[in-house]
Amino acid sequence: MPRDSADTRARLLAAAREEFTDRGLEGARVDRIAARAGVNKERIYGHFGSKDRLFEAVIATTLDEHVAALGLPTGDPADYVGRIYDFHATHPELLRLMQWESLSYHGQALPDENRRAVHYAEKVAALARTLDTEPGLDPAATLLTLIGLAAWPHALPQVTRLILGPDTDSETAHRVLRDHVVDFARRALHAGTEQRARL
Amino acid sequence: MPRDSADTRARLLAAAREEFTDRGLEGARVDRIAARAGVNKERIYGHFGSKDRLFEAVIATTLDEHVAALGLPTGDPADYVGRIYDFHATHPELLRLMQWESLSYHGQALPDENRRAVHYAEKVAALARTLDTEPGLDPAATLLTLIGLAAWPHALPQVTRLILGPDTDSETAHRVLRDHVVDFARRALHAGTEQRARL
Repeated sequence: MPRDSADTRARLLAAAREEFTDRGLEGARVDRIAARAGVNKERIYGHFGSKDRLFEAVIATTLDEHVAALGLPTGDPADYVGRIYDFHATHPELLRLMQWESLSYHGQALPDENRRAVHYAEKVAALARTLDTEPGLDPAATLLTLIGLAAWPHALPQVTRLILGPDTDSETAHRVLRDHVVDFARRALHAGTEQRARL
Repeated sequence: MPRDSADTRARLLAAAREEFTDRGLEGARVDRIAARAGVNKERIYGHFGSKDRLFEAVIATTLDEHVAALGLPTGDPADYVGRIYDFHATHPELLRLMQWESLSYHGQALPDENRRAVHYAEKVAALARTLDTEPGLDPAATLLTLIGLAAWPHALPQVTRLILGPDTDSETAHRVLRDHVVDFARRALHAGTEQRARL
């Protein structure tokens, strides 16, 4: 790809991510994305084909960055929960995009579905290796739950605020909540070890 | 309120809940709600004032039903997790409405905010009474986490499917996942008890 074309593509993806994060697939407007990127609207169709394909490209690149930043759940799974928590605290766009996706896709094939399934399978396999001391915990279901523990407070921030009080956006509140979810994961993951240690 | 007026209001709320669940606050159209309810569009404004107020009324009534169905977290908190899981499995509209709300409200006062904060405070107080054998677990943060454990697989069903495989909608898959989240909660909540039992 020529350099100016790659630049245009990158600018369009960045502008589209902002627009889709704010407004979702249905609410996003291609002319607003073009204006934000400083690019003629026709070039969006040239590069991506349609608004739906552009949404898919945004999901794919955002998830690639997430996978690269987070790595696999090797080591202590409770530390992994803390890393997921930190990622969503500093990258709110991923969960918003996932929620827009969940609200817009009703059982259709997802953007980038096969590659995403492979990424999750790799995480499940890595987690399975660290869970070998915890019989009774299914690695796939446990991965889903560990992600949820860390992501939930960020997914519905209004519920977090209603439960924890109005200053949940403070540094301190974030640290306390992070410690809580990591501790909760650690308790659950070490419960079996504790029980066996008593036998 | 005269009986036909109360009937109209109930029909409008039911139609509005469907429309908002499907399309969110921005995407919903008042004429579609009126048509669905078989009611003149002007009566929506007469009863509710605006689309925003109608959305707020839908959130409030849906949460009232949720509170009535679920009750307070008295008894074993892990059983409470199972009840939340069952509620969301059979009432997908609540989480969708919460997600639309999260995507549309940016720090403004929420629909029905004060009453919702009171409901959560009652739940925190009830949970605090059952957690007295678990020092180290903050009741408010624990309530948030228990709700998240149960709600997460339903909040982003596409992620659940990507991690657990394509047949996550089957009865069996639901039961296995329900058992998993209840077991995970039980492990975390009894970890302290186990540790102290060893001392």
